[in-house]
Amino acid sequence: MKIALAQLNYTIGAFAANTEKIISTIKNARSEGADLVVFSELAVCGYPPLDLLEQKDFIDRSNQSICEILSHVKGIAVILGAPIVNEGLKGKNLFNSALFLNNGSIERIVNKTLLPTYDIFDEYRYFQPNENFEVINFKSNRIALTICEDLWYKQPLLTNFGKNKLYIVNPVKELANQDPDFIINIAASPFAYNHDKVKSEILSYNAIKFNLPVLYVNQVGAHTELIFDGASRVVDNNGKTVLRMPSFKEFVSYIETDGLKKENKIQIPPVPEEIEQIHDALVLGISDYFSKMGFKQAVLGLSGGIDSAVVLVLTCRALGPENVRVLLLPSQFSSAHSITDASALANTLGVKYDIIPIKEIFTQYLTGLQPAFGSLPSDVTEENIQARIRGTLLMAISNKFGNLLMNTSNKSEAAVGYGTLYGDMAGSISVLGDVYKTDVYRLASYINRDTEIIPKNTITKPPSAELRPDQKDSDSLPDYAILDKILFNYIELRKSENEIIAEGFDEKTVRRVFHLVNMNEYKRFQTPPILRVSSKAFGFGRRMPLVAKYN
Amino acid sequence: MKIALAQLNYTIGAFAANTEKIISTIKNARSEGADLVVFSELAVCGYPPLDLLEQKDFIDRSNQSICEILSHVKGIAVILGAPIVNEGLKGKNLFNSALFLNNGSIERIVNKTLLPTYDIFDEYRYFQPNENFEVINFKSNRIALTICEDLWYKQPLLTNFGKNKLYIVNPVKELANQDPDFIINIAASPFAYNHDKVKSEILSYNAIKFNLPVLYVNQVGAHTELIFDGASRVVDNNGKTVLRMPSFKEFVSYIETDGLKKENKIQIPPVPEEIEQIHDALVLGISDYFSKMGFKQAVLGLSGGIDSAVVLVLTCRALGPENVRVLLLPSQFSSAHSITDASALANTLGVKYDIIPIKEIFTQYLTGLQPAFGSLPSDVTEENIQARIRGTLLMAISNKFGNLLMNTSNKSEAAVGYGTLYGDMAGSISVLGDVYKTDVYRLASYINRDTEIIPKNTITKPPSAELRPDQKDSDSLPDYAILDKILFNYIELRKSENEIIAEGFDEKTVRRVFHLVNMNEYKRFQTPPILRVSSKAFGFGRRMPLVAKYN
Repeated sequence: MKIALAQLNYTIGAFAANTEKIISTIKNARSEGADLVVFSELAVCGYPPLDLLEQKDFIDRSNQSICEILSHVKGIAVILGAPIVNEGLKGKNLFNSALFLNNGSIERIVNKTLLPTYDIFDEYRYFQPNENFEVINFKSNRIALTICEDLWYKQPLLTNFGKNKLYIVNPVKELANQDPDFIINIAASPFAYNHDKVKSEILSYNAIKFNLPVLYVNQVGAHTELIFDGASRVVDNNGKTVLRMPSFKEFVSYIETDGLKKENKIQIPPVPEEIEQIHDALVLGISDYFSKMGFKQAVLGLSGGIDSAVVLVLTCRALGPENVRVLLLPSQFSSAHSITDASALANTLGVKYDIIPIKEIFTQYLTGLQPAFGSLPSDVTEENIQARIRGTLLMAISNKFGNLLMNTSNKSEAAVGYGTLYGDMAGSISVLGDVYKTDVYRLASYINRDTEIIPKNTITKPPSAELRPDQKDSDSLPDYAILDKILFNYIELRKSENEIIAEGFDEKTVRRVFHLVNMNEYKRFQTPPILRVSSKAFGFGRRMPLVAKYN
Repeated sequence: MKIALAQLNYTIGAFAANTEKIISTIKNARSEGADLVVFSELAVCGYPPLDLLEQKDFIDRSNQSICEILSHVKGIAVILGAPIVNEGLKGKNLFNSALFLNNGSIERIVNKTLLPTYDIFDEYRYFQPNENFEVINFKSNRIALTICEDLWYKQPLLTNFGKNKLYIVNPVKELANQDPDFIINIAASPFAYNHDKVKSEILSYNAIKFNLPVLYVNQVGAHTELIFDGASRVVDNNGKTVLRMPSFKEFVSYIETDGLKKENKIQIPPVPEEIEQIHDALVLGISDYFSKMGFKQAVLGLSGGIDSAVVLVLTCRALGPENVRVLLLPSQFSSAHSITDASALANTLGVKYDIIPIKEIFTQYLTGLQPAFGSLPSDVTEENIQARIRGTLLMAISNKFGNLLMNTSNKSEAAVGYGTLYGDMAGSISVLGDVYKTDVYRLASYINRDTEIIPKNTITKPPSAELRPDQKDSDSLPDYAILDKILFNYIELRKSENEIIAEGFDEKTVRRVFHLVNMNEYKRFQTPPILRVSSKAFGFGRRMPLVAKYN
C-alpha cells in the first residue's frame, strides 16, 4: 500500500486555509497513486488551540471543515486529526481524535489515549482519554492508528523523585494484540534540541518491541512559543529509520508499506547538528510568528553586543533585511566600539539603522525626578531608566511604522533577572529567551562559520550592559560558563541546590544563583513569549508561584 | 464529637511558618477540648504550589513538616492536607492527600479523586486520582473524608456545547455507601463573587442527597492572583447552613457533631453583599501580595480618574496610607481638574504625593525621534510615549525606594486593549484587571457609601485617558454599560458573536468588541498578575493562543 505522509504547517483557527491545504494535498496524493494520505494531530484546527477548544463556534467550524474535506475523499483514504465532541454522558467535552475517512464518510474515529499534561502540555484540560482499542482494516492492511503521546507509554520520568511510570495503559500494546501490519502515529510534537534523539529511540523501541513498522507524521511550523520541527519519519520493524523528512519545512513523502518488513537499505540524510537545528528553529519561529500574526516588519535595538547581533541575523534570515530596521541608542556610558560594531553589522546585512542618543532624554528624567530623589546616590534606578528610554524609543518606532519589536534577552539573563522590565525585557517575541549565553556564542560561531558576518569584536569583547561607567556582566554575575551549568542543572534537570553543590560547584555561587532565579519569577511573568528550543523553557511550560517562600 | 475547623492563611513553601501555625492551632484546639482539628487542602505547603511540586526538595521539606506536626498529635486527632508521593509503580508522582493523624502516627491517607483541570486549576498536571474509598472510624464516628472538588461530581458545564457531566466517579456516593455519620471536606477553593451561592448549593445538594452533614474547611489568604475567602461552613443533613465562618480572615470554629442530625436553629450571619465581598477580596489580595513577597510600600500614578482613585483607596486599606505614595504626572493634555481631583483624594487619605509634569521629557523624546518620524502626523504613538514616560517615572520611584507599582487598568480596558504596554499596563499587581469598568463605579459608590472619600467629580466626569486634546474613552469605545455586557457574555459566558447579536446587541458593536478582545491577546500576555474575583479572569485561567486566526 502506498501512503502519503503530509508534514504541513497549519495555523490555529485558520479553518479555511488549513482546509484548502489539506484538500489540495489529498488531490496531489491521489494523483501520485497513494492509497492513503496521513495528516498530523489536530490538523483541521492547528495545534495547540488552547482554550479556543472551549468555544462552540470553534468546534462548529472544525466540524464544517471536516465535512468540506470529506467531499474530496474519493479514490483515496485519509487520516486526519481533529477535536471531536464526546457524545457520551460523562467526561470532558472533547476527544483528541484521528479520523479515518474513506469513500466520502468517516469510517472510524480513533481517540487519543495518553494525554500529556505536563510542561507545555495541558491536554487533560480539554480531552477525555480513550479506553477502546481496535485496529483499522483497509485494503488488506491492518493499521494500528495512534496519536502522538500514545507511543510514549515509556515516558521518561519528569521529576527526580518517585519511581513511577507516568501512564497506566499502553495503547500500542492493546493494538499490537490485534495483529496489525504497522503503526501510524499522527503527532504535534514540538522541537527541543535534545528531543530528536529521544523521539527516534521511542519510535525504534515501539517498532522492535511489537515487531511493527512505525509511520510518524508530525506537523511543522511555529505557534507563538512552540516550534514544530516536522522531521517526520518511518521506522521499520527492526527499529531502523528508513525515511526521514526534512526539519522546519513542509514536505510530503510517499512510502510503500509492503516493503517495510523486509531488510531496508535506504540512505537517510544525516540529522543536522544541534546548533544548526536551533538556528533553523529560531528562524522558523520568527517567520511564522510574523506571518501568522499578519506582520512583516521588525525593529530591534542593536547595542554592539552579541545578543542583539545574533537576533538581528536570525530576524533578517526570517523576514529579509529589507523588512528589518534597527536603532542604535547610545548613552553617555556606551563605548565607542558599541556604535562601530553595531553599524558594521547593520551595513553587512544591509539593514537600515538610525542612531538616537538617549543622553538628553535621560537628563530630562533626572531633572523631573530630582525633587523626589534629592541627593540620593545613583544606583540601579538610573540604569533602569536608560533601559526604559530605549524600550520607549523602540516601541515608538514599532507603533509609528508597524514593526514588531524583537526582544534580545537570553536565557541566562532571564533566569537571574539581569534585565529591565519594560526596558530591554520588552518586545513582541523573545528570540533567545530559551538560549543560554554560552549557546548564544555557539550560534554566533555557527553564523560566522564561513565568513565573518557578526563582527569579531562583538564576539570577543566582555559582555556589558553599558549602563554605568566600565560596567561588565561579570561584576554582577558568575562567569557564564559556570552560571549556565548551574542554571541547566536547576531549570532543565530540576536538581536541588544541595545536589548541585555536591557535584562540586561553589556553594555560595549555587545558592546565589538559586536565589536570583527564584526571586525573579515576577520579572519573567511579564516577559514576551519565548521561542522554545529546549526541554524546559521559561514561560508556559514552567509554572512557578510568584508569591512563595523558596528557601 | 467536638471538631475544630481551622481556616488559616498559609504561604506557599513557607514550611516553617505553616508548620508553626498548624502546631499552635492543634495545641489550642486540644486545650478547648476538641477531639479532632481539621486543616485545609495542602495546608502543609500552601495551595497552589504549581511546579514546586516537581522539585524533590519541596516534597522532602513537606514530609519533614508532617513529621514535626506528628510529634504534637497527642490527645487530639488531626486532618491535614499535604502532597504525598505515589509509591505505586504507575501514574503521576504525587497524590493530593488528606492525612488522618492520630496518636502520633499517620493512621490513614485519603487521596483526592476529582482533580480539577480547567480554568485556573491544573491538578492533573501533578496528581494521580484516587480510586479507593473507605470511611474513617474515629471515636464511634464514621467520617467520609473528601478533598475540595470531590464534592463537585455535579460540576456545572464549563462550555456551552456538549451534554457531559465532567466526572465519571462520585467519591461522595462511594463513601456514603459505607454509612458514614458526616462528610468532612478540606478545600482550597478560590473566591469568585458569584461562586459563594454555587458553593452553598453544592454543599446542600450533597447533604440532602446523602442525608449527611457536611463540614467544609477552606483556606483563606491570597497567592498572587488567587484569593481564597475562607467562608468555611457546616451544613446539616437537611442542607441547612448551621455555621458560617467569616470571609477573608483567619478563624477557628468549633462544632459539636452529635447535634448535627437534629433540627438546628442557629443564627447565621448574613452573607456580605457582592460588592462588599469584591472590595474585601481585593484588599486581602493586595495585603497578602505585599506581605508574602516581603514588601511593605506601594506607589501608583493618580490621574484624577476613577480607576486609580479606587486602587489608591484599596491599597491604603491594605497597607496603610503611610506606606503608599502617589505621583501626579500631568501632561499638556491633562485637564486642570485631574490635578485638583487627584490631590484632593491624596489629601483626604493622607497619602504623600509628588507632581512631576511630563511635558519636557515628552518634548525630548519627540526631538530624538524627529529624524526617524519626519513630518508624519501625530497618532497613537505619541499617546503611548506619554503613557510610557509615566510608567518609567513610576518605576523609577519603585526602583529607588522599593515601593511596588500598583497597576490601575480595569477589566474592560484589558479586554479591548485600551492601554499602553509598558505604560499604564505596567505594575507588579493588577488590582482591577478582573473588575469591569461598570463595577469600578460600584466599588467607588461602596467606598463612598457613608462619606465622600473619592471626589464626586472623579466619579461623575466622563472617562478619559487625557493623551490628546479633549480625548474621551467614548471616542474609541462603546459606552461601558454596553461594552461590559458584551464582554461578560463573551469572556465569562463564552457565548459566540452570533449568539450575542441574537440577544439584541448591535451587530457592528459586537463584532468590533470581539475583534478587539481577540487581537489584544498579545498585550494581556505581558500584563502583571491580576487579582481574580470573577469566575473567568484574564491570566492563567484563560489560555488563548496569540498566534491564531480568530475569525
